[in-house]
Amino acid sequence: MTQPLQNDTFLRACLRQATDHTPVWLMRQAGRYLPEYRETREKAGSFMGLATNTDYATEVTLQPLERFPLDAAILFSDILTVPDAMGLGLRFEASEGPRFAKTVCDEASVAELQVPDMDKLRYVFDAVSSIRKALNGRVPLIGFAGSPWTLACYMVEGRGSDDYRLVKSLLYSRPDLMHRILEINALSVATYLNAQIEAGAQAVMIFDSWGGVLADGAFQSFSLHYTAMVLSRLKKQHAGQTIPRIVFTKGGGLWLQDMQSLDCEVLGLDWTMNLGQARAVVGGTAGGPGKALQGNIDPNVLFAPPAHIDTEVQRVLNSFGQPHTDPNTTGPTHIFNLGHGINQLTPPDHVAALVESVHRHSRVMRQAV
Amino acid sequence: MTQPLQNDTFLRACLRQATDHTPVWLMRQAGRYLPEYRETREKAGSFMGLATNTDYATEVTLQPLERFPLDAAILFSDILTVPDAMGLGLRFEASEGPRFAKTVCDEASVAELQVPDMDKLRYVFDAVSSIRKALNGRVPLIGFAGSPWTLACYMVEGRGSDDYRLVKSLLYSRPDLMHRILEINALSVATYLNAQIEAGAQAVMIFDSWGGVLADGAFQSFSLHYTAMVLSRLKKQHAGQTIPRIVFTKGGGLWLQDMQSLDCEVLGLDWTMNLGQARAVVGGTAGGPGKALQGNIDPNVLFAPPAHIDTEVQRVLNSFGQPHTDPNTTGPTHIFNLGHGINQLTPPDHVAALVESVHRHSRVMRQAV
Repeated sequence: MTQPLQNDTFLRACLRQATDHTPVWLMRQAGRYLPEYRETREKAGSFMGLATNTDYATEVTLQPLERFPLDAAILFSDILTVPDAMGLGLRFEASEGPRFAKTVCDEASVAELQVPDMDKLRYVFDAVSSIRKALNGRVPLIGFAGSPWTLACYMVEGRGSDDYRLVKSLLYSRPDLMHRILEINALSVATYLNAQIEAGAQAVMIFDSWGGVLADGAFQSFSLHYTAMVLSRLKKQHAGQTIPRIVFTKGGGLWLQDMQSLDCEVLGLDWTMNLGQARAVVGGTAGGPGKALQGNIDPNVLFAPPAHIDTEVQRVLNSFGQPHTDPNTTGPTHIFNLGHGINQLTPPDHVAALVESVHRHSRVMRQAV
Repeated sequence: MTQPLQNDTFLRACLRQATDHTPVWLMRQAGRYLPEYRETREKAGSFMGLATNTDYATEVTLQPLERFPLDAAILFSDILTVPDAMGLGLRFEASEGPRFAKTVCDEASVAELQVPDMDKLRYVFDAVSSIRKALNGRVPLIGFAGSPWTLACYMVEGRGSDDYRLVKSLLYSRPDLMHRILEINALSVATYLNAQIEAGAQAVMIFDSWGGVLADGAFQSFSLHYTAMVLSRLKKQHAGQTIPRIVFTKGGGLWLQDMQSLDCEVLGLDWTMNLGQARAVVGGTAGGPGKALQGNIDPNVLFAPPAHIDTEVQRVLNSFGQPHTDPNTTGPTHIFNLGHGINQLTPPDHVAALVESVHRHSRVMRQAV
């Protein structure tokens, strides 16, 4: 039905298999920094107009691949589609970010919450199928969702926050209500990701964008536990292929040891974490168990001239160190990415320089073995 | 000249000496959550009107001590007084936070920067002397400054930021200019803190509020290195007393091992770090070298009912574990604090509950030895 993969470097690295270069893709690679994206968004009228239209979502997902030899595509969507389908009424206000019409703030609003009818998210699964078709085996497609905790932050706050006062007040005052929200979110996210896998997603990523704002102890109980609950319900195989699962906790470097027990193949890291140290904790050894690592250059590096970008790319590659190269077994592998989504003011030709540097240096590194 | 200290618990804990309870003070304890503060600020007309008036600054510094049995006072001021004295023109806009009229963004503006004339900061030193007099030996007074990196963030961005694009673009594009700014900041901060010590500050704290936004590697070169430069220039003794030095890096838990080498007595930690793990890395053992630890409850715990606050206080105390209790030697000690400044919407009676819980449980813990 679909073409065999022409470039499986990303999927192989997810599974800790040797590759001839370090695969690279960028969080939010389809986005406002690209003039062609802004043009499509203009036509669509709004962010949700873009995300809910299969043709537009397909078009923007493929745009960065036309410019850069990226090793993976990621579904164009938003983590807040799930609470929107729960009936909270998502809208994106110009330059103000996402807003919910309804918030979850008390016993009554928590009691109303339920796992949404997946028919309301049909537009996402349709986009996945359409993108798979359009990719035609060029690179694998990553599906994604927000973590139960990260979704809860938005559901309680109603928007982004800089102090998380409302969601943490609820957490510390009524942990029972918070656990209820998180359980519903976990069941919803698992169902949502499984439907993306069935529609054609070849890997899935859970964005725990706000896990890092929690206190030690609270992170384990209110974020990690529910991410684990999602993972325990995900399909591991589809259409005869293993579906790698990536967990990215922004600001989660301190809890890597705790994340080792997650039933996932890849851990994403932001720029604060030393990749060599992370590899020592969770990367494993050749032939043994371990997790692939994804990350972690500071997106602001992309504002420097290409020569400086090249230096920083080498620094990140060297910080991970020599990846596993034996084709006969598994071992520590690295997927290059930013430590956070790309900034909308990023010059596209600097992105080209970054991708080229990753591919070039990572091939040279392997020849040094 | 000044009265002997009636409560030296905080200073003893800074120096890793045994105390009969865990001392507690709160970052931003003199602030908007107190109605009496809001009244004084109203009279002063503006934040800078308050900070530059000796009587007002003294009044608000003492306000929280009238309500709560805190174990230390901290100078009422702002970290941005130093770049203001450099001529950048600080103003606080209603609900928008600090703004600088001039920013440091290119070769020419960096070339103009110099260590400010300390006469322009006379109002700070006058406030320190006045507060010492008003405290009359009740509790020790902490002086403070921003770290060179944190000041640079505001000097380049001109205000707070959520992506640090401008300051990081400069860092990655023109590291030479960034190092020059940081060196001037380090010399300025050292001179400023020494003048506070001479005016009567009995401990000093360096707030590296934005150190945690840097990438691994960049943190060590652009933040930690310059904090160390400040520390190397500080007076260790004044009027026959040792002046403890506290370094607080928000989001710095990953780099505790690197901070071990700082020439300071205390490390401040935010709520993401496990105090027991931090103690194992830098707390040392009885009779051996080490650092006291300060922190680290999530300020949002203060929005929960007092019974929940009590539980969370115990959790933080237990996470540090039994402090050193031998009066004949030094050992691991804990100073209780928030992991960040207190939120302006905090109910004052919840602060009373927190302070009471810290004192009560920490006395009980010591009896268990």
